[in-house]
Amino acid sequence: MSAPAAAQALADPADFKRGMRQLAASVSIITAQQGAGRRAGLTATAVTSVCADPPTLLVCVNRSSQTFPLMREAGRFCVNLLAAEHSDVAARFADAALHGESKFAHGAWHAGENGAPRLHAATAAFECATLSLSEVGTHGIFVAAVTRIHVAPGRAPLLHFDGALTTLPMVSQAPARA
Amino acid sequence: MSAPAAAQALADPADFKRGMRQLAASVSIITAQQGAGRRAGLTATAVTSVCADPPTLLVCVNRSSQTFPLMREAGRFCVNLLAAEHSDVAARFADAALHGESKFAHGAWHAGENGAPRLHAATAAFECATLSLSEVGTHGIFVAAVTRIHVAPGRAPLLHFDGALTTLPMVSQAPARA
Repeated sequence: MSAPAAAQALADPADFKRGMRQLAASVSIITAQQGAGRRAGLTATAVTSVCADPPTLLVCVNRSSQTFPLMREAGRFCVNLLAAEHSDVAARFADAALHGESKFAHGAWHAGENGAPRLHAATAAFECATLSLSEVGTHGIFVAAVTRIHVAPGRAPLLHFDGALTTLPMVSQAPARA
Repeated sequence: MSAPAAAQALADPADFKRGMRQLAASVSIITAQQGAGRRAGLTATAVTSVCADPPTLLVCVNRSSQTFPLMREAGRFCVNLLAAEHSDVAARFADAALHGESKFAHGAWHAGENGAPRLHAATAAFECATLSLSEVGTHGIFVAAVTRIHVAPGRAPLLHFDGALTTLPMVSQAPARA
């Protein structure tokens, strides 16, 4: 910690969580695969664009999650942005009682070019190669080069705001599925 | 750049931008002040929570912006999350023709405890002290300790999605202001 920050008192973690409830964000599934074997994934909202050229993004992942060590070891991961109709997928990947492979039981998942599982129905999927990993408190910040992008626009995004899943009203939304 | 990323071709920047249009995000104004003098701020969506304890967030800021050098020199900044009614503030701080002080001409702005300008009407304002700055391509990633938080919940957030400003339908929204 730098001297300026250490010299000032920190805010209360409970207040921080209360403030962060006001930050709305798209919901993603971040996935990784270890070699030809074990797959893991988690539901996340801490995903941002860093730079378009070269294409770079970052994600913040809890170091105690099952997915974190696979991301670190593989050096590859995939960020799958969810549409409004994927709230069940978001719930499944956020379920602490489910492990590894069982999370992938629903939805069409297949390996991207970088090996990490890609959700075919994602509104956008970013295949990533880690450039740097910084550990900050409970979390790791992965800054990554984007090696491949799949985009399927035109649908409402799944969002997280004020502790709940929600979505945007779309002017021209894709037809609802029966 | 690490060997694994360099060994793989990168995605096309235009595809990256197209993919990132699918990432919905809250709109913030990030501000900084140099000593007792010059103020600057910019409209941003690249803000994420890193860790609740100790309270830590990160922001990605274009290094060619007027705000970037002030953030770097001050070592302090403020992240102001906007409500739906602040689309004019978002437009003003995104206007490349406006400079420094003129952006603060509308809205109730005053210095936070850390000196950076705080928008009184923000849904949440995070006063920050920079812990680290990493430069990646066109942007800088500021990881920062949060020293003070102001929260005023109950309003719809201002969002950016698919190249436009939008908001969420709120179940119980605060009364509109006359």
